[in-house]
Amino acid sequence: MPSEETMRGAMQAYIDHFNQADLSGIVGLYAENATVDDPVGGPTQTGRQEIEAFYAESLKTGAKLRLSAPIRASHADSAAMAFEVDLELEEGRFRIHVIDVMTFNEAGEFTSMRAYWGPGDMEPVPAE
Amino acid sequence: MPSEETMRGAMQAYIDHFNQADLSGIVGLYAENATVDDPVGGPTQTGRQEIEAFYAESLKTGAKLRLSAPIRASHADSAAMAFEVDLELEEGRFRIHVIDVMTFNEAGEFTSMRAYWGPGDMEPVPAE
Repeated sequence: MPSEETMRGAMQAYIDHFNQADLSGIVGLYAENATVDDPVGGPTQTGRQEIEAFYAESLKTGAKLRLSAPIRASHADSAAMAFEVDLELEEGRFRIHVIDVMTFNEAGEFTSMRAYWGPGDMEPVPAE
Repeated sequence: MPSEETMRGAMQAYIDHFNQADLSGIVGLYAENATVDDPVGGPTQTGRQEIEAFYAESLKTGAKLRLSAPIRASHADSAAMAFEVDLELEEGRFRIHVIDVMTFNEAGEFTSMRAYWGPGDMEPVPAE
């Protein structure tokens, strides 16, 4: 089981890579056969190839992530974090309130990611 | 699948019942055969009898919960929330940073609860 520090570090690296639009950095945090459910209830991306395609699309929105509260670890191979995402779609700018839960392998890689957010967690952001 | 409003309402009721030390209110949010993992990585409580015994102990700490960010729903039968717990143990007062993930049945009852927090998410609170 990876240490709390390893798990928290990987969660923070996910935020940082996203904010640098670093696709290979994000994908490199995942284990080879990992799964991504974003949002929970949508299609599951399985394996690095599908995961890379998924994040390539995500990065096109210019998504920027900001922690809402400190990253949580666990007494097992999991960690969780609450954050907000600002992104731009054809329809305009939006903010989504999200909680991600990751599980980890011994190497400290994500083996799964589940993103909890519903339609009511997405709100339009007025133009500046 | 319960509506987002139903799931968010049950999550908020969980916080409120805790802060009123309302044991039957908390337990009544759970389905008959629900499971509780608090913390994730600790023992699993299964069924209302074990769950009631677990919360009876929890309430002895005087635990008070405060949301860190708005409750998140999902596109499925799940919701998640980040909060802080202030509680009192023999060793003194502590604050724990937690993320809870609940799954729901059709009736809007919790079928599972998983509480993500690690040793590093618990910090002493100085006496006032």
